[in-house]
Amino acid sequence: MTQLSYDTASARSAADDAAEHVDPARLTDAIDALATIGARSDGGVDRPALSALDFSARRGLIERAQALGCTVSTDACANLFFRRAGNEDLPPVMTGSHIDTQPTGGRLDGAYGVLAGFECLAALADANIRTRRPLEVAIWTNEEGSRFQPGAMGSSTFVDPSRLEGFRTVSDAAGVTFGATLDAHRSAFPTLATRAPGAVHAFIELHIEQGPLLEMAGTPLGVVTGIQGVRWHSIRCTGAAAHAGTTPMAVRRDAMTLAVRVRGAIEAFALELGGDAARITFGSWHIEPNSINTIPSAVTFTVDFRHPEPAVLARFDAALAECIAQHGADVHLEPLFEHPPVHFADSAISRVRAACDALGVRSQPIVSGAFHDALHLAKQCATAMIFVPSRDGISHNPLEATDDEHLVLGTRALAHCLVELCNEAP
Amino acid sequence: MTQLSYDTASARSAADDAAEHVDPARLTDAIDALATIGARSDGGVDRPALSALDFSARRGLIERAQALGCTVSTDACANLFFRRAGNEDLPPVMTGSHIDTQPTGGRLDGAYGVLAGFECLAALADANIRTRRPLEVAIWTNEEGSRFQPGAMGSSTFVDPSRLEGFRTVSDAAGVTFGATLDAHRSAFPTLATRAPGAVHAFIELHIEQGPLLEMAGTPLGVVTGIQGVRWHSIRCTGAAAHAGTTPMAVRRDAMTLAVRVRGAIEAFALELGGDAARITFGSWHIEPNSINTIPSAVTFTVDFRHPEPAVLARFDAALAECIAQHGADVHLEPLFEHPPVHFADSAISRVRAACDALGVRSQPIVSGAFHDALHLAKQCATAMIFVPSRDGISHNPLEATDDEHLVLGTRALAHCLVELCNEAP
Repeated sequence: MTQLSYDTASARSAADDAAEHVDPARLTDAIDALATIGARSDGGVDRPALSALDFSARRGLIERAQALGCTVSTDACANLFFRRAGNEDLPPVMTGSHIDTQPTGGRLDGAYGVLAGFECLAALADANIRTRRPLEVAIWTNEEGSRFQPGAMGSSTFVDPSRLEGFRTVSDAAGVTFGATLDAHRSAFPTLATRAPGAVHAFIELHIEQGPLLEMAGTPLGVVTGIQGVRWHSIRCTGAAAHAGTTPMAVRRDAMTLAVRVRGAIEAFALELGGDAARITFGSWHIEPNSINTIPSAVTFTVDFRHPEPAVLARFDAALAECIAQHGADVHLEPLFEHPPVHFADSAISRVRAACDALGVRSQPIVSGAFHDALHLAKQCATAMIFVPSRDGISHNPLEATDDEHLVLGTRALAHCLVELCNEAP
Repeated sequence: MTQLSYDTASARSAADDAAEHVDPARLTDAIDALATIGARSDGGVDRPALSALDFSARRGLIERAQALGCTVSTDACANLFFRRAGNEDLPPVMTGSHIDTQPTGGRLDGAYGVLAGFECLAALADANIRTRRPLEVAIWTNEEGSRFQPGAMGSSTFVDPSRLEGFRTVSDAAGVTFGATLDAHRSAFPTLATRAPGAVHAFIELHIEQGPLLEMAGTPLGVVTGIQGVRWHSIRCTGAAAHAGTTPMAVRRDAMTLAVRVRGAIEAFALELGGDAARITFGSWHIEPNSINTIPSAVTFTVDFRHPEPAVLARFDAALAECIAQHGADVHLEPLFEHPPVHFADSAISRVRAACDALGVRSQPIVSGAFHDALHLAKQCATAMIFVPSRDGISHNPLEATDDEHLVLGTRALAHCLVELCNEAP
């Protein structure tokens, strides 16, 4: 048997070759085709997780992968895995993202990462490249969290299968459980092999930035070094309903007046503590009784604070607790969710940066402001991400767009990086 | 035929007699009974205008009035009129109020005035009092404006029937038109006579103060001299939806940040212009898309400004226009409603004050902070109101309450006043 060689020189060459074989038209055609499934009249896409539309999209991708000679498998959370064999029985390198969307979503969020993964499979086939390790493209189930909460059910279950039992009982707005849709998925694709969880060598997710930083800097590629940490809270301010016309200002207990003051205080210390990297958002508001001529009796609003530094998040927690305490019984805090900042593996980050350099494309380090499936994979294997610019920084919106040139560059960097990782020694 | 006499001495005596025949237990029992229709678990009442609950309440009152020998009629706006005949064919004296409530309303707002009117009908019957003029108790439709906007549709249509056509097309939150509910009311009560609009001699509305002034002064009865003027506006602030995690603070266009700033500016000049008599409320808010991790793209909120002085209202209008103009295209103002201050008829005010004096009860002049059906009746006939104290000044709230002693005093004053007015010469 011939001893295959994966030394530095030949590996670099194969990676360059893979990047060169990325076909711009095939990539954008695939994006256009997927965007027709769940297309909105405004140019956006509405393709709920595990809906009939999602099933239809999956069916097309399964057929495409099989035509490329890949094996297709699924798991207990309806994640799909499209595997290109390696020469050795080693843990695979993975890429991929999700194909579910926000209700008023765009055509690139998630879909781009999956279809770029498929383009890499095709490019490797065209270039007749053999890799030491298998390469898998994954579709992670229900990343958006729009149909079933929380999001990233698929990738988080892949990393921690014990989560599945709890997720199965979650219902969508129509009362359909996540478990029922998983069973329907299994029935819809009866011939797929079942993939057991197992070691993964590395995971690289390619995604649109969903923010304006790359575009503002004029940089085509972002080397994502991690995902900022987040705190979600609900704050309830209590006052007393009273008649708008009859109640003197001095005796009012207006819950909205209180809420606006608390919001201002939180915003001020969030920006002071977090500086330019802070993101503070008060996105959801519920006012009671919400009547034009009644003083608000209660206002509940949400706080979304994000920052890449654990120390800043901790100082925010302390300042928030102090702020709430200062307001006594009229202000109540309910923590909803939190996640620490994630720093991706230096080895994977280096591979992404080297891929950009090998292509001669300018890149910059960037911290992801949004959650991604990579957040969970990072717990299991060397993980990093590649970002391409979002036009006007817009995402979760039918206007979401990225220049074709950038879509292609991102895919070339992904192909380069994946081949390098696939040829890494055990 | 015996010539009936309504000279000063006998009229005063009949009025005293009517006041004495007010039955405290019957009054409070009637209030308790009506409060069971639409009762909330927190002790409040939720009885939307022309809902099934409202129909049920009306049915009970129609039966009670018929048992008292009254004739019952309705009009094109589903107002109900319970008429006790007079000895002469003269324009009637009217009292009454409304029985629809706020969604988190109390048991007295409106209901007290209607049921005190019924108590007067019963007291006059018990005392076997005949009056020169007919006495009518009215239930005015949709006073609160909670289900259909604007409020006081019934009383304003009674005074100006041309308003009805526009009101009929107004929809509630479920999409049901006001016109459809009027038709349903007509079908539900097919045997009621139709009352044509016509001259009214005087209108006296008894109501809870809905504010703290009488209680703070320790005065049992308020002689209401008028109603302060009001401006209602809707303000829409526009921003841009964007991802809470990925969008730097400096490039955000957060519609809630803008709305909070505009709210603060309006509050500041309202209080500066209006002083202690100013009432400024921002009661209703609608945030889009109202999602925890999306920056608000649009916020619509209401402004309710009230003041007794026309000059202050005019200065507020000018300051508001200037404030909106300063914010450019992102802030849009829609006027919803306005009403100038109303001064009630001196003749009717005198009758109310005389009734308090005749009972030996301390009273004080007071300007109403709230709208009432009397606002509209004042355009048609000599109108005034009687206020009783609201405990802790609370109204539009399940905790709304008035001491029984005050409820009875108010009803005695009403009975006295109505008999005096009913015996006035043409």
